[in-house]
Amino acid sequence: MAVPTSTAPERTQDDTYERLAAVVAGPRAWIREQVRDVLADEAFAPVTGWPIPEHRARILEQVRAIAGTKPVTIGFPRSVGGEADPAAFVTAFEELAYGDVSLQVKVGVQFGLFGGAVQQLGTERHHEAFLPGVMDASLLGCFAMTETGHGSDVQSIRTTATYDPATEEFVLHTPDSSAWKDYIGNAAAHGRWAVVFAQLETLDESHGVHAVLCRLREDDGTVVGGVTIEDDGHKNGLNGVDNGRIAFDHVRVPRTQLLDRFASVDADGAYHSPIENPNRRFFTMLGTLVQGRVAVSGAAVSAAKLASTIAVRHGLARTQFVAGEDGLEVPLMDYLSHQRRLLPRVARTYALHFAQQRLVTLLDEVLDDADTPEDEQRRLEGLAAGTKALTTWHALDTIQEAREACGGFGYLSENRLGQLRADFDVYATFEGDNTVLLQLVAKQLLTQFRDEFGELDPLGMVRFVAEQAIDVVLERFSARQFIQSLVDSVPGRDDEVSVLDRGWHLKLFQEREEHTLSSVAQRLRTLSAERSDFEAFNHVQDHVLLAARAHIERTVLEAFVAAVEACPDEGVCEVLSSLCDLYALSVLEDERAWFMEHGFMNAARAKAVVGTVNQLCRDLRPHADGLVDAFGIPDALVRAPVALRQPGETYLDARARLRESGVLPS
Amino acid sequence: MAVPTSTAPERTQDDTYERLAAVVAGPRAWIREQVRDVLADEAFAPVTGWPIPEHRARILEQVRAIAGTKPVTIGFPRSVGGEADPAAFVTAFEELAYGDVSLQVKVGVQFGLFGGAVQQLGTERHHEAFLPGVMDASLLGCFAMTETGHGSDVQSIRTTATYDPATEEFVLHTPDSSAWKDYIGNAAAHGRWAVVFAQLETLDESHGVHAVLCRLREDDGTVVGGVTIEDDGHKNGLNGVDNGRIAFDHVRVPRTQLLDRFASVDADGAYHSPIENPNRRFFTMLGTLVQGRVAVSGAAVSAAKLASTIAVRHGLARTQFVAGEDGLEVPLMDYLSHQRRLLPRVARTYALHFAQQRLVTLLDEVLDDADTPEDEQRRLEGLAAGTKALTTWHALDTIQEAREACGGFGYLSENRLGQLRADFDVYATFEGDNTVLLQLVAKQLLTQFRDEFGELDPLGMVRFVAEQAIDVVLERFSARQFIQSLVDSVPGRDDEVSVLDRGWHLKLFQEREEHTLSSVAQRLRTLSAERSDFEAFNHVQDHVLLAARAHIERTVLEAFVAAVEACPDEGVCEVLSSLCDLYALSVLEDERAWFMEHGFMNAARAKAVVGTVNQLCRDLRPHADGLVDAFGIPDALVRAPVALRQPGETYLDARARLRESGVLPS
Repeated sequence: MAVPTSTAPERTQDDTYERLAAVVAGPRAWIREQVRDVLADEAFAPVTGWPIPEHRARILEQVRAIAGTKPVTIGFPRSVGGEADPAAFVTAFEELAYGDVSLQVKVGVQFGLFGGAVQQLGTERHHEAFLPGVMDASLLGCFAMTETGHGSDVQSIRTTATYDPATEEFVLHTPDSSAWKDYIGNAAAHGRWAVVFAQLETLDESHGVHAVLCRLREDDGTVVGGVTIEDDGHKNGLNGVDNGRIAFDHVRVPRTQLLDRFASVDADGAYHSPIENPNRRFFTMLGTLVQGRVAVSGAAVSAAKLASTIAVRHGLARTQFVAGEDGLEVPLMDYLSHQRRLLPRVARTYALHFAQQRLVTLLDEVLDDADTPEDEQRRLEGLAAGTKALTTWHALDTIQEAREACGGFGYLSENRLGQLRADFDVYATFEGDNTVLLQLVAKQLLTQFRDEFGELDPLGMVRFVAEQAIDVVLERFSARQFIQSLVDSVPGRDDEVSVLDRGWHLKLFQEREEHTLSSVAQRLRTLSAERSDFEAFNHVQDHVLLAARAHIERTVLEAFVAAVEACPDEGVCEVLSSLCDLYALSVLEDERAWFMEHGFMNAARAKAVVGTVNQLCRDLRPHADGLVDAFGIPDALVRAPVALRQPGETYLDARARLRESGVLPS
Repeated sequence: MAVPTSTAPERTQDDTYERLAAVVAGPRAWIREQVRDVLADEAFAPVTGWPIPEHRARILEQVRAIAGTKPVTIGFPRSVGGEADPAAFVTAFEELAYGDVSLQVKVGVQFGLFGGAVQQLGTERHHEAFLPGVMDASLLGCFAMTETGHGSDVQSIRTTATYDPATEEFVLHTPDSSAWKDYIGNAAAHGRWAVVFAQLETLDESHGVHAVLCRLREDDGTVVGGVTIEDDGHKNGLNGVDNGRIAFDHVRVPRTQLLDRFASVDADGAYHSPIENPNRRFFTMLGTLVQGRVAVSGAAVSAAKLASTIAVRHGLARTQFVAGEDGLEVPLMDYLSHQRRLLPRVARTYALHFAQQRLVTLLDEVLDDADTPEDEQRRLEGLAAGTKALTTWHALDTIQEAREACGGFGYLSENRLGQLRADFDVYATFEGDNTVLLQLVAKQLLTQFRDEFGELDPLGMVRFVAEQAIDVVLERFSARQFIQSLVDSVPGRDDEVSVLDRGWHLKLFQEREEHTLSSVAQRLRTLSAERSDFEAFNHVQDHVLLAARAHIERTVLEAFVAAVEACPDEGVCEVLSSLCDLYALSVLEDERAWFMEHGFMNAARAKAVVGTVNQLCRDLRPHADGLVDAFGIPDALVRAPVALRQPGETYLDARARLRESGVLPS
């Protein structure tokens, strides 16, 4: 099978990339601009290697400076002065990745997690009492969920909140040293209050995890009686955030400080909840916090954009090794291996960008509609969990590849990649460990079926799982029909269809998802006859994770295809289309062993996929600078001398110029 | 194809793992012990987040404390008080990875690079004048090779050393800001002297890159006239090392300071060298520095050992999620996905350990024999380059996986993985960028052929490349015959041989190497008819890199197989044998797409490989602690509380105990 001639357009001299940038910036470009303007100020420049107290103080100053402004207040209810626009908050949060990532995380803790929990789990009186202080940062708070002994398994946390009818108080208590609240942002130094997640007990009955507001420190900073706080100390990154661990020794808080949107306790201790099933109640409460994962996922896409911008620009400016008789050295980006390192990652960054934008749209719809059906909410959560896993891993992978692609320059802190990597490292395991999240996605796809169709015959079940997988999340997705028509138009035999046929890409992604999901259901059914549920599940865990990844990757490709289709601008559409091909084919290349093993691809076709990825890399090479320009990160935020050289300028000269012009601190 | 029953032995209660540890420690265990004793002292404990001046001062103290002792002097000539045992130095260097990696790098700069260059490129009078001061660290020096504008392409550096017969001096000069010596360890603060690599010019003729000794600072620390030194500033890691950049403005050094083992300049300016061909001379000079790459490669294996020790022990102590009716939580290591994350990496660490040990043996033989034939020297260099690329990437991959497998604990600096990763990050691009090194390996395999057999017909050429590839490096390898007999005994059809058949593994590794190498030769031949050499090479660059990797991976597997075969201890041999299977099969799993595409594996076989990797992970699970114990890193050097918990102990309790007992600083 010959490698097809690619359809990638030639590098244009017009404003294609500016127009592409507008497509990337999307409908909420205005709030991106606002955040960029803030971050361009020297007071917001990221710092490296600062002593912890100074770094924390700088970040606190930044939080105070941004407090009360739209980027951090827009998501809050109108009743307290917000605009009830969480999608805009999430978009603003994405942009914060270009500054000091410690600021991003501290903003996430204060306005997203702490403020978000008060908003989503509390009721009107909590909003009134707390949200204004959250929004203007006069009341700094913590989100105290994770414990030293329990991370992603929130249901098993062991802090207790026991109701005492005699005083109408909850007694918060940490039973032992594995139940300290840990890694809690704002805890080590600045937080005055915390939303504490604890097992609620009243009248000798336990009702599972609930959230209670608790004061940690007096306004002057003194830690309140019964509370012990320890500093988590130096971390791999994010040292501008004051993470700490908290223990409670029978700390009493008034009954009214239970965040009681989903459950309340009467003065006499009677427990009430509109949601009877404790499991459903737990997941409903946690589900309202989905915005956090969506935000983190968007931040990771931004990190990948920044890292690829730095590496691609360096690859264009840096020459190495003489190629021919003329004695000229070759720019790194002209080497196939360098193109292969960077361009598929740029394509994947675009893919995840559009997937992220669709996720934000979905978030907007779900949060905007008080009557969102529960399954719709669950779908959003699944998509957020799976997308977050893929985007955060992609960010780490891209930053690392960018670092290596910049050689020694990449190891200098002034070129930012080391700090970016260190800061983002934890994104893979916080807001849910990625492996646990993928498992959750798979379980959701499988369980959903089991609940609703438990009576079907085995084959029916498997068939259902397969069909349903395709419809999950996207059934209301407007491009659904268009995508299916592309898929349906693919001829039955591979050798009749071009390797660049979009319908063929979509079909393979769908087939992989269907097959992995239905076969894992089948295996589970067989295994569970002779083993415990856990053993059965554990036996096929690798397969379960694969199914989840296949599901999410299919949704990512479909989001990219939909974005290409929706693009009204022909020139931009052409470039995006080539990127979309490169994304699809580089996933197919990575996964081609599976496709061959399961009869979806023959050896010749697999080789053609590899060859076409090479060809697309060569074809997109002339667009490399335009593609990263269109991420739209202004020089004032790129801030890495290695990425800001002018043609022919040496690194040291460029750095001197940037210092002089104020782009870099002198 | 069914997954075969694995032959992994059951977990034993006897001293198997102690005996395994002895095999791993190998013949130079005594010097490992010596280094471990030094590092166990609190003064050698790694630090994180220290201000640069304090961190540099601490590392300098450590260098002074270890100076003059065997671990750093044993490699030097007997004439100056050393023991001419570079293999022992390289082994000691491996162990330094368990301390502060900044110390390792500073030791590498002082005793390995600076001292090594004086020893290997200089002659008796340089040895006498400089080496004693190098060895006792009274004379701190730099290895000034890399320039801002030229990293791995050393031949293109632009600093000049122009001979002036009038004064019998060389004039060292930096032509512009892209030719500063950069990332030079010991330069920013402590170095007094440097070995400077520069283009030697005399009597208006250029003779290529040579090394000249040049004073940088007076004994009191004042920088000498004409020299400008700038601090490289904060780096992603290794901030205990004072890297800097150096420029020379017509700095004059006496003629006698040319390191003149391979070339000299008479008083009147006449140039002499025993090696006529400038290219050969350059590679001969660089080749003598091969020890650096061997040392760096060994350090990376140690880093992988440390990271897997930490993650595996945490995986055994940490439980998460309740599995069954009994309400007990499952240890992370019991999850298939966790086994899959860690155990194949442990197996690969063992494989690379044995490959590294064989590399050290080869280094020992080559350096010990003044009459080593040139091709033998080149082979050592190729093997060192390729092994270094694989070990350093493996180290980064393992540290990152370990970090994520430790969740939040892994993000706390006290658990070391963040610093380890940050420090080792640069190992992938220093001492030769890994991509450039793999290219060098491939070029060597191909060029060797072209030089010697240029007249053969095309098919003969291809055949020769294929045959020769197998013999390269290993022709003098004593296990050669044994390995070939295993390969030859494999039946022709896959379905007649077990997936666990060692001969089959070896055969596939060999076939992959032969096929990738001969096909790249063929493609190059075809392409070069119509394109420039560079274009032809660049067109198949991904294929070239694959061939190099296939070559090195084959040598790694063979080294592991030889180690299993050589092990006289049946119990140990059994465990090693299972690890060797896991290594071989996890490489085959990663590469199975290629094997299917090229007809070496069918789909059923590929699926069986995947299934067998799962089975081996389950089988080796009971050995997990023993396998990392056998890396032999004492608790006093592991120093991560997350890895030192006792059964049932909480993290915070363990940390308190370790602080009290002095294992951790309190």
